[in-house]
Amino acid sequence: MTPAQTAVLDALAPVLGRKGIVTDPDAIAPWLIDWRRRFHGAAPAILAPGSTAEVAAVVAAAAQHRVPLVPQGGNSSMVGGATPPADGSALILSLRRMTAIRRVDAAAGLAVAEAGVILSDLHDAALAVDRRFPLTLGAKGNATIGGLVSTNAGGTQVLRFGSMRGLVAGVEVVLADGSMHDGLAPLKKDNRGYDLTQLLVGAEGTLGVVTAATLRLVPVPAVRSTAWAAVRDPQAALTLLRQFQEATEALESFEILPRESLAAVLAYVPSLRAPVTAEAAWHLLIEHTDPAGDALMERLLGAALEDGLIADATIAATAAQAADFWRIRESISDSERALGPASQHDLSVPVDTMPRFMIEAAAACEARFPGCHASGFGHLGDGNIHFHVRSPAGTDPAHWYAEQVPVVTRFVDDLVIAAGGSIAAEHGIGQMKRDELERLSSPARLTALRAVKAAMDPLGILNPGKLVALAPSAAAQ
Amino acid sequence: MTPAQTAVLDALAPVLGRKGIVTDPDAIAPWLIDWRRRFHGAAPAILAPGSTAEVAAVVAAAAQHRVPLVPQGGNSSMVGGATPPADGSALILSLRRMTAIRRVDAAAGLAVAEAGVILSDLHDAALAVDRRFPLTLGAKGNATIGGLVSTNAGGTQVLRFGSMRGLVAGVEVVLADGSMHDGLAPLKKDNRGYDLTQLLVGAEGTLGVVTAATLRLVPVPAVRSTAWAAVRDPQAALTLLRQFQEATEALESFEILPRESLAAVLAYVPSLRAPVTAEAAWHLLIEHTDPAGDALMERLLGAALEDGLIADATIAATAAQAADFWRIRESISDSERALGPASQHDLSVPVDTMPRFMIEAAAACEARFPGCHASGFGHLGDGNIHFHVRSPAGTDPAHWYAEQVPVVTRFVDDLVIAAGGSIAAEHGIGQMKRDELERLSSPARLTALRAVKAAMDPLGILNPGKLVALAPSAAAQ
Repeated sequence: MTPAQTAVLDALAPVLGRKGIVTDPDAIAPWLIDWRRRFHGAAPAILAPGSTAEVAAVVAAAAQHRVPLVPQGGNSSMVGGATPPADGSALILSLRRMTAIRRVDAAAGLAVAEAGVILSDLHDAALAVDRRFPLTLGAKGNATIGGLVSTNAGGTQVLRFGSMRGLVAGVEVVLADGSMHDGLAPLKKDNRGYDLTQLLVGAEGTLGVVTAATLRLVPVPAVRSTAWAAVRDPQAALTLLRQFQEATEALESFEILPRESLAAVLAYVPSLRAPVTAEAAWHLLIEHTDPAGDALMERLLGAALEDGLIADATIAATAAQAADFWRIRESISDSERALGPASQHDLSVPVDTMPRFMIEAAAACEARFPGCHASGFGHLGDGNIHFHVRSPAGTDPAHWYAEQVPVVTRFVDDLVIAAGGSIAAEHGIGQMKRDELERLSSPARLTALRAVKAAMDPLGILNPGKLVALAPSAAAQ
Repeated sequence: MTPAQTAVLDALAPVLGRKGIVTDPDAIAPWLIDWRRRFHGAAPAILAPGSTAEVAAVVAAAAQHRVPLVPQGGNSSMVGGATPPADGSALILSLRRMTAIRRVDAAAGLAVAEAGVILSDLHDAALAVDRRFPLTLGAKGNATIGGLVSTNAGGTQVLRFGSMRGLVAGVEVVLADGSMHDGLAPLKKDNRGYDLTQLLVGAEGTLGVVTAATLRLVPVPAVRSTAWAAVRDPQAALTLLRQFQEATEALESFEILPRESLAAVLAYVPSLRAPVTAEAAWHLLIEHTDPAGDALMERLLGAALEDGLIADATIAATAAQAADFWRIRESISDSERALGPASQHDLSVPVDTMPRFMIEAAAACEARFPGCHASGFGHLGDGNIHFHVRSPAGTDPAHWYAEQVPVVTRFVDDLVIAAGGSIAAEHGIGQMKRDELERLSSPARLTALRAVKAAMDPLGILNPGKLVALAPSAAAQ
C-alpha cells in the first residue's frame, strides 16, 4: 500500500467504519478479475460506502491524496471497465452496499434506485406495483444500476424502449472533487444548460460516480407473443423487421442467428430442441406485446411465408416454450465457446446496412484468416450484433488470444468503421477497446472526449486507464 | 468593425462569396433583436455559409482571430439566445442557407436535415413519405432544425415522443477549433465514450455549431381524438391525466389553462367560442392518437364526469373544431399580453407536484405583489407551465419591466427551486436567465457547466455570454 493510499484509508476509517473498508486479500481477490477473465488487476483495498455522503467523503479523500478510484458495481463489464490497474495504484470504490430502492411510484412510472441495486431486484420491485423496468440482459442477477447507467447498457429489449440512456430520468452523482450533484428530480423538461445526466450515462465512471438514478417504468403488457422463424438471409430478415414495425409499435425483440449458432446450442444444451424443422441458413426470434397478440404474429408470419420471405415459423404456444426460444438465444455465447477460442466483437452499423455487413464482413474475415469461421448474431432490430471470428480447429487458446485476436480485432474494427458503424455498441470501451477507440476516432471526436475528461476529472483519479487516456496536458499533471 | 473582424471577413471572402457575407446594416438589423424584442445586439456582419465545410472555415477563421460567433437559425429564441452582444464584438453566424433535407427514409424512420431547415418544411417532407416528425411549436414557420436541436426544443406534443433530445439520433457539428465531428450515422447503440450528440443538444451553440441532424420520424396516426374538458382544479386534472396514461400509450397532449386565460382569449379573438358551457375554474385540452379514437375518449371522459372529476367535456366532432380548440390554446400568450405587461416564467416541476405548485405559487405571488394577478397554463402532462405574473391595472410597461420583473423573477425562481423544479423548462437559458442560473445552481452543477464550456470552447468564441459565463481561469485568457 502506498503512503497516499494509507492516508486515504486512515482518513476514511471513522467515516466508513469496519463494514466499509475491506483489506483482506481473499475478500478482494474476486473483484480484481473481470467477467471474461481477461484482465487481472491489483488493489490493496476496497472502499464500500453505504450512503451518498460516504461516497462523497471517499472521493474527496482520494482527490486530496491523488489516489485513483475504480468504481465497481456487479463487476460484469465485458471490456474490463471495472477492473483496477495491474500496478495496484488505485483503490476499488464498490457501490454494492448502496442497495436502497428509495422510491417506486407506479402512477408516475418512476423508480429511484441506488447504484448498488441489482437489476433483477429492480425488476421485482417494479412488478410488485404492476410496472415493468424494460431493460434486461444476461447478467441481470449481478449487474447493478450504477454500472448499467455508467455503461449505457443495452440487452435484448432495447428495440422498443431504448438503451439505459432512454430510461434514465436523472442521476445523483459525486463529481471528481467530492461535490454532489443531485439531478434525481424527474423533470420531463429541463434546459438548465448542458445535460449532466446524459453526460454521466455511458461515461464508465470516468467523469463522476453515479450513486443513484431515477428510472422510467412502463406498464406491464397484457399479452406477449413470441415466435421463431427460419429465414433465407439477413436481407429477408430486414424486410420482415420493417413489416413488423409498420404493423405495430410494440415490437420488443427481433434477434437473428445463423444456422451454425443454433446447431452449436443444440449440441451444447441437450435439453433444447430446434423450434422449426425447416432447414434455413438463418433464424429469427421475434417478440411483441401488441394487444393483438398471436393473431398479429400469425398474420404477419403467414404473409411472410406466402411471400417466400421465410421458410417456416412457429409461435410459442406457452410461456415455457417462449422461454425455451430465449434459452437458445442466451446460450449462444457459451455454446460457441465450446467450439474453440474466438475473437468477439460487439458492433453496430445502421440497421439498413446490417444485412450486407453480416455477409460481407464474414466473407472478408474468412478470406483474410484462412481456417477461421466468422459469423454474427444478435439484435438485428438495433443494428447491433455480436460478431465472432473463431480460430481454426485445434488452436491453442492462449496463443490465439495473444497472437491473433489483436490482428483480427483491428481487421474487424476497420470493416465496422468503413460501414459507418461503432466498434463499441453496447459493451462500452473500458480498457479493452481504449486503444482501438483512439486509433479509429476522428481528431475532432478524440479531442472532445479528452477535453471533457480533463475538464470533469482534472486530477485523473476516476477510473484511470478506461475509455480515453487523459489529454497530454492533463496527464502531465 | 474591429481589425480582427476585418481579418476574418477578408479571410472568408473567397470561401463564402458574395452571398455568404452580409454587411449591409439594413439587412443585418432584423437579426440584432430577439423574438420578444427585449434584447438589442450589434454586429457588423452576418456570415452565412452554405455548407458544412464553409461553416468549418468560418469557425477556424474566427478561432484564429479570436472573434466571437453567435450562431443563429430562425432567431425565435425566447431568452435572447441568438442575439449578439451589444458591444458589436461578435459576428453572426447564420445557418439559414443550409436548407437541404439530405435524406428522408420512411422505412428506417429517419431524416437528415441541415441546420437551416425550417421546422414546418421538415413536417412537410416527412408527410410526403407518410411519416411524421412529432415535435411542433408556435414558431414552426421560423424555427430551424439547428436552433431546435441546440435548444432541446419542446412544444405541445412532447408528452409522448419527448423533447428534441429524444428525437435526435445524431448530429454533425463544427467544434470550436473548426474541426468537424460527423455523428450523423443513425446507430441505435453506440457506446464510444461520452455522447457528443447529447452534449450538443441543448448547448445553445456554446460548445459547437450544429450543421445537420439525423432525426427520428414516426408513423402518421390513423386517428386523432381531441377533447376539451372543464375541471375543478389542477389536482383533479392530474388524476384524469393518470387515468388517460393508464388507458393508452398514445396520449399526445394534456394541456391545462385557468378560466381567466380562456376568458382573455375569447375577448381577444372574437371568432372563437368557449368549447364547453359549464363554468369551471380550469380547462383541459386533451389529445390522443390511440386506434380506439373517440370511443376511448368518450369512455374516459364519461367515467370522469360520473366520478365528478370533471364538470363538462366535449369531443371535437371535426378537424376544424379540434383546430379551434388548439387556436384557443395557442392564443393565450397574445391575449394575455393585451391585458397588460407580465413577468413570464417557463418552469417545470415533477408532474405530481405541479397541481399544488400552480395553486400555491399563484397565491404566494399575489400576496407578495399586491394588485398583481398570477396564474399558469400549459403542458400539465410534462410538468411544464408558463407562469405569468401580470402587473396591476394601469402599470406602465417600460417601468414594470425595468423595476418589477427582476424582483418577481427572483421570487418565482426561488419558489421553483424550492419545489425541486427547473427555472428553464423548454426555452433554455440564453442571456435572459444566465445570472439566475448562476444564482440558483449548486456549486457542483455550476463547476461542471463551466468546466465543460471551458473544455469545449477554450477561447470562448462560441455564443459568448449565453448559458454560462466561462470559468474565471478560462475567461482570463
